[in-house]
Amino acid sequence: MTKKFSHRHLLGIEPLSADDIETILDLAGKYVKQNRSSQRFINKLNGKTVVNTFFETSTRTRTSFEIAAKRLGAEVINFNANVSSISKGETFLDTMRVIDAMQVDAFVIRHQENGAPGMVVPHVQASVLNAGDGSHEHPTQALLDALTIRKHKKRLDGLKVAICGDIEHSRVARSDVFLLNKLGSSVRIFAPPMFMPRDVKQLDVEVAPAMTDALDGADVVIMLRIQNERLSAGEFSMAPAEYHKLYGLDHAKLKAARPDVVVMHPLPMNRGVEITDALADDPKYSLVFEQIEHGVAVRMACLDLVLGAD
Amino acid sequence: MTKKFSHRHLLGIEPLSADDIETILDLAGKYVKQNRSSQRFINKLNGKTVVNTFFETSTRTRTSFEIAAKRLGAEVINFNANVSSISKGETFLDTMRVIDAMQVDAFVIRHQENGAPGMVVPHVQASVLNAGDGSHEHPTQALLDALTIRKHKKRLDGLKVAICGDIEHSRVARSDVFLLNKLGSSVRIFAPPMFMPRDVKQLDVEVAPAMTDALDGADVVIMLRIQNERLSAGEFSMAPAEYHKLYGLDHAKLKAARPDVVVMHPLPMNRGVEITDALADDPKYSLVFEQIEHGVAVRMACLDLVLGAD
Amino acid sequence: MTKKFSHRHLLGIEPLSADDIETILDLAGKYVKQNRSSQRFINKLNGKTVVNTFFETSTRTRTSFEIAAKRLGAEVINFNANVSSISKGETFLDTMRVIDAMQVDAFVIRHQENGAPGMVVPHVQASVLNAGDGSHEHPTQALLDALTIRKHKKRLDGLKVAICGDIEHSRVARSDVFLLNKLGSSVRIFAPPMFMPRDVKQLDVEVAPAMTDALDGADVVIMLRIQNERLSAGEFSMAPAEYHKLYGLDHAKLKAARPDVVVMHPLPMNRGVEITDALADDPKYSLVFEQIEHGVAVRMACLDLVLGAD
Repeated sequence: MTKKFSHRHLLGIEPLSADDIETILDLAGKYVKQNRSSQRFINKLNGKTVVNTFFETSTRTRTSFEIAAKRLGAEVINFNANVSSISKGETFLDTMRVIDAMQVDAFVIRHQENGAPGMVVPHVQASVLNAGDGSHEHPTQALLDALTIRKHKKRLDGLKVAICGDIEHSRVARSDVFLLNKLGSSVRIFAPPMFMPRDVKQLDVEVAPAMTDALDGADVVIMLRIQNERLSAGEFSMAPAEYHKLYGLDHAKLKAARPDVVVMHPLPMNRGVEITDALADDPKYSLVFEQIEHGVAVRMACLDLVLGAD
Repeated sequence: MTKKFSHRHLLGIEPLSADDIETILDLAGKYVKQNRSSQRFINKLNGKTVVNTFFETSTRTRTSFEIAAKRLGAEVINFNANVSSISKGETFLDTMRVIDAMQVDAFVIRHQENGAPGMVVPHVQASVLNAGDGSHEHPTQALLDALTIRKHKKRLDGLKVAICGDIEHSRVARSDVFLLNKLGSSVRIFAPPMFMPRDVKQLDVEVAPAMTDALDGADVVIMLRIQNERLSAGEFSMAPAEYHKLYGLDHAKLKAARPDVVVMHPLPMNRGVEITDALADDPKYSLVFEQIEHGVAVRMACLDLVLGAD
Repeated sequence: MTKKFSHRHLLGIEPLSADDIETILDLAGKYVKQNRSSQRFINKLNGKTVVNTFFETSTRTRTSFEIAAKRLGAEVINFNANVSSISKGETFLDTMRVIDAMQVDAFVIRHQENGAPGMVVPHVQASVLNAGDGSHEHPTQALLDALTIRKHKKRLDGLKVAICGDIEHSRVARSDVFLLNKLGSSVRIFAPPMFMPRDVKQLDVEVAPAMTDALDGADVVIMLRIQNERLSAGEFSMAPAEYHKLYGLDHAKLKAARPDVVVMHPLPMNRGVEITDALADDPKYSLVFEQIEHGVAVRMACLDLVLGAD
């Protein structure tokens, strides 16, 4: 690596430059190849301790970070926030400072509050990586999306990307928008009325009046799931079949996009709701499991760069 | 090892040949010795990732597989299915495909549904090992039982084995029956009426009308516990003391068996219910903790062979 | 190390001699330095398996032991007692014997019952380390407290130590008292009336009638939190602000102590209840996060010595 990476923390896509993002993606590309070889484990982070501190339910992202850290030779501690001292009245910051005092090297933090990982930074010596905070950012998801797009489109500029679904509660959508804009692509969003973000005007996106408008000529379609766990009871009660009809993606609707369109989803999918079974499993369009593969490689690159930063 | 092992997956005892079983047991025998030495960890599975995916509560079997995989040098990921994306509406198969896309080498699956591990096989690249599926099979338990019997009886053919207790809900009983029949031993079962399997005629066993008949001249007695967690509320309400009197094992009842009979139990035991305290701890008869020791060795052998298969 | 350590188990401070304690602290001091260096992981316990068996909620202590064991090269198994076979009716001792039969080297046990770790010893081959049992002992906490005091006071004899708060439910207080008395320091306790231990006369301490008396001329003040999880509902209902006024520590009250007093707390803290925010974060007095750092080093020393004992 001749390029420099100067961020000791990965709090979001917003603070990164286009160069930073390309540095991460280039290194992640190498790790994709390495993960497909028989020599998947290396010693780069030997002697380092990475702590997964997840204050929200997650297994996919936690597992992806755990595999990523172990493939680089780091030790991984899974700190289960549900059974932690927080239930004994300890503050979030004290909990993080306590683990930091055990001389660890990186925190991977998922938290329900916007900005929680950033709040930790001034209080700890370890690096902080945001694994999703509230409806704010989910930077490694945007990076794995970008790696997947770049592999199939050979570029990240000049693309038309449609993001459809529950935009309001989606930290993925926000991080994707930041990243794609920085790299020179344009984003159109389509959200059911109840899922249109209130601050949509602050996002640099085109708001499509109908799903067909969002899909029209798109190079990439990213479908989002309804984040039931972020909705209050009764806040949303549309039947899945009706939601699917109005806002879900199928082969017929996809015809509005470019013939070489690719379809992505951050998972978990509600099959038959935001996307049909047939499309989710159609190898001509769907990249959903490739995204997962790229997730491990992107997280390896982020850990590697952040822990190697000055 | 000159013998070949051709199974990339371990879904049950039923698909294995007698030769396959002996190959596993011979290798497990070596691992028993190794585990008792000071050199318990080897590098055979270095660079491999084994994922424990347990959709049912278990710590013993999960821990046994975790220790087995680590002793061979593999990395182990514990995927906690209770807090996984399945609670967000994801299907079981999508969850398994997601982890598979992270390039892992083996899944150890426990699931409440019969056949769940086999369902996964066509959808993943990794090897699949069944750690217990519904009331179907629990192959590593049968293998560790066989290793324990072989050690004490010096053979696995021509033996009379009695299996007593809740046969209906027992995947252990089914796997034991398959294995013992394949190796040339005969099995007699005795079950309380409510725990007699409905498909008993399809099993190659003799049904004993009374517990004494089952025990009569037996070389081995395997006691099963009442699987309360598989019973609907109110389905079974006999007092433990009454159950013990009618269906439990003690020294007196054991006199019907051969003098050199051995007593086994897949654990956890309900002491005083299906077996007396005194018998469970009697070193002359009880092999229950030796079974646990053999469990680690058998799981090492299974992981080793399955991951080395062509 | 020329000094010998003869204990295969660490059940409490009470069974240790002053020499034993100094042997542990001396080794822990070396590990503090090592943990601050870039070479934090060593191979001393390679091939050993350490099992964390926590029957009470804890993440801090479990994580500290996990990091300690891994830094010495051991494999760590986290046995989650909440989802274990104990919920299927298995006894505590059977659970421990089952894991022991998997050929493990050390159990780290936290249990709600006084004496539980000691009960296990005759039934297992592995070493047993007490990570807190009921209101009995928490030896590694007392050792890390001692290491912290020794660093700042350059000695452990002739000191006046005040322990204030919920003494009755505190295993930390008991272990601290045993240790400080053995090393030649004196302890004064001050407890709110409802938290005065009933067996206080058996403890070798001076009972202070008021908090000022406890603090008067103290070299060290150890504040304890209210252990809400050990109180029955309704047993204690004082408002936090009132508790703080009567029994909490702040800069004003601390003036009764020596000018070079240090303030400690086993954590988690209820800020604003037993201690003010300002004091908890005052680097002139507060050693609370340094205690955490020392905890890892002390646990490394204990694992190392116990597993190396004859």
